[in-house]
Amino acid sequence: MSESVEFTVAPAEGGVTCPEGFTSSALHVGIKKSGALDMMLLACDTSVPAAGLFTTNLARAAPVLVSREHLERTSGHARAIVTNSGCANACTGTDGFEHARLMTSEAAAALACRPEDVLVASTGVIGVKLDITRVLPGIRTAAAALARGHGADAARAIMTTDPFPKSCAVTVTTPAGTFRVGGTAKGSGMIEPDMATMLGYLTTDADVSPAMLDRALRAAARDTFNAITVDGECSTNDSLFAMASGASGVRIDDALYPALLAGLLHVSRDLALGIVRGGEGATKLVAVTATGAASDDDARRVARTIANSLLVKTAIHGADPNWGRIVASAGRSGIRFDLGSVTVRVGDIVLFEDGLPHDERADEAEALLRQESIAIAIDLGTGGAGTATIWTCDLSAEYVRINGEYRT
Amino acid sequence: MSESVEFTVAPAEGGVTCPEGFTSSALHVGIKKSGALDMMLLACDTSVPAAGLFTTNLARAAPVLVSREHLERTSGHARAIVTNSGCANACTGTDGFEHARLMTSEAAAALACRPEDVLVASTGVIGVKLDITRVLPGIRTAAAALARGHGADAARAIMTTDPFPKSCAVTVTTPAGTFRVGGTAKGSGMIEPDMATMLGYLTTDADVSPAMLDRALRAAARDTFNAITVDGECSTNDSLFAMASGASGVRIDDALYPALLAGLLHVSRDLALGIVRGGEGATKLVAVTATGAASDDDARRVARTIANSLLVKTAIHGADPNWGRIVASAGRSGIRFDLGSVTVRVGDIVLFEDGLPHDERADEAEALLRQESIAIAIDLGTGGAGTATIWTCDLSAEYVRINGEYRT
Repeated sequence: MSESVEFTVAPAEGGVTCPEGFTSSALHVGIKKSGALDMMLLACDTSVPAAGLFTTNLARAAPVLVSREHLERTSGHARAIVTNSGCANACTGTDGFEHARLMTSEAAAALACRPEDVLVASTGVIGVKLDITRVLPGIRTAAAALARGHGADAARAIMTTDPFPKSCAVTVTTPAGTFRVGGTAKGSGMIEPDMATMLGYLTTDADVSPAMLDRALRAAARDTFNAITVDGECSTNDSLFAMASGASGVRIDDALYPALLAGLLHVSRDLALGIVRGGEGATKLVAVTATGAASDDDARRVARTIANSLLVKTAIHGADPNWGRIVASAGRSGIRFDLGSVTVRVGDIVLFEDGLPHDERADEAEALLRQESIAIAIDLGTGGAGTATIWTCDLSAEYVRINGEYRT
Repeated sequence: MSESVEFTVAPAEGGVTCPEGFTSSALHVGIKKSGALDMMLLACDTSVPAAGLFTTNLARAAPVLVSREHLERTSGHARAIVTNSGCANACTGTDGFEHARLMTSEAAAALACRPEDVLVASTGVIGVKLDITRVLPGIRTAAAALARGHGADAARAIMTTDPFPKSCAVTVTTPAGTFRVGGTAKGSGMIEPDMATMLGYLTTDADVSPAMLDRALRAAARDTFNAITVDGECSTNDSLFAMASGASGVRIDDALYPALLAGLLHVSRDLALGIVRGGEGATKLVAVTATGAASDDDARRVARTIANSLLVKTAIHGADPNWGRIVASAGRSGIRFDLGSVTVRVGDIVLFEDGLPHDERADEAEALLRQESIAIAIDLGTGGAGTATIWTCDLSAEYVRINGEYRT
């Protein structure tokens, strides 16, 4: 393997269509009753290297199965991704598969490519039949409207209960030239850290092989999309896509791989944290970091258990420095440690150390918990170097309201 | 093993002190600021067979460790159980252990027995130092006030955020004579099905060996206290105790074991369901039953994942027959099944079958979901006979309010 090179990553405009070679369009086809944008088409000028990460849920939606099959058939290439929001096309039987396939063949006809060159995603309510008579004409219209500069609309067209669109782009400057990485994602509910979360789209104009793009996508997702949680729920439709147009002419070899990964990580982290910030009912972004574990896997399990604890999430919502709930969550995570060696911090304020409470600074911790961005740390004191961070949000009455009334 | 005999189980009055040989007292010693009862002493006339099930949380509270040690030292005997509410005495370091030990030695001195004949339990906020100067005189007062007929006060004295006390008793009539089983429990928050949940006390005047009492306690807990969830949180203090006075003179042998188990099961189920009904913010009791699994363990895992799903619990709160969330939860449970063979029911109404939605009866399902007691069933269609029921409650904004403001 060759030496890696120096590079810089800088913010850029344009979101998912920032990288050269990509166009998008967004429109309302009639699935969302509100009249909001509910279809997004993302396309490249030709069929290009592509990769995907999909839900581990056994109840995979039809579009997930169709996209995975298409990526296999093309050995990791795609021309376009067609997406509808407002209906997940999940648990919809053979009709659902037929509809997902029709979406890809309609887009293929409009773009003059093969159906297997088109990937498909759906998001919204589970178990509702897709109104394919509205979707298919919409795909034709979307294909005719493809253009650069529609990145902002693309980000809005994939939203369901998301309170704001999530979009990001960067330029990566290397000695071999400059390439761009862009992306958009939607999240909100059914967000569980154990996989590629909800819908995410990453684009780059770097020139990269399908295998290397797949490797970089998995590596980028591990500590971003796969390290967040809103409610511990793994969806039927979670999909994360990457496409590489090669239009920058910058060929990614082993030496430039870290530059590609850095670009993907930057955009992925920005989008993933946006999903948590915009989680259903969320008012705070919380980073839960576990250190001093025997392994990174142990640290991740402890951090995840804390990040998914209803009692921790409600305490943070109420700005209550209730470190006892953090210790209790760690204690039921299944990871072994000695309570007498544990340290718990909110920000840099120690609340529990050497088996003893330190509530003398609880007021300061409470002030930190009233902020919008919060850091919680637990050191397990096992002598190991295992560490991990999971991002989560607080749990509010608004989450209950949204999910008790979602369909009604 | 001898043949089992016929028996009948009938409701009785008196709660935890219904069985002969038991007395209790309850008082306010000053831990709860509200002035409510916060100490309970339960005693038997002599040291009798006793058993305990304790939290699997690694961060076990001092009273849990002391009670476990005492049961080991006495080979399963106890004279009394002393309990305070309002402070969990958990994560309180060596002082916490000293306090738990002082509670047992003070009770032992008052009752003229050995400290190891006394078990101890605490419930309330984690990480707060126990005000032992108020607790110890309280124990003396409590010991002096022991009497039968205080079962109702005993049930109130162990409450924290519980909206109502939980108490139950039965008489079990067998050819060998009649014995009684009584009990009380407290729950509300930090309720997770994977172990003896929160504080529970079972008494019987059957004459039973420590080993058989332990066996019966584990068997009774498995499908009652260990089959409920409020918020998926396993506490630092969960303890379930059983004591057998032998005062009825009915000796439990293998033939009478089913009668003892039936009595314990009746009382345990009543108390466990009371904990769910009285879960923090709960408005509905929900039985989640999984059938058609390859094994009972598989069925339990699927039922538990559904019962702990925030999206399922909020949908039930909003009376939304959103079966898609039930299927999605089952799908992420880690158990393998074929989506095309799954059936989902609310009450007797089929909402999903053979991979297809059946929303034509959604209105009837919604009406069922507006009731206070709800049955949800999922058949996995694997051809196996594995089955399990987990009881849970809905998730309301009130849960968030209670747990966002618990300490403040």
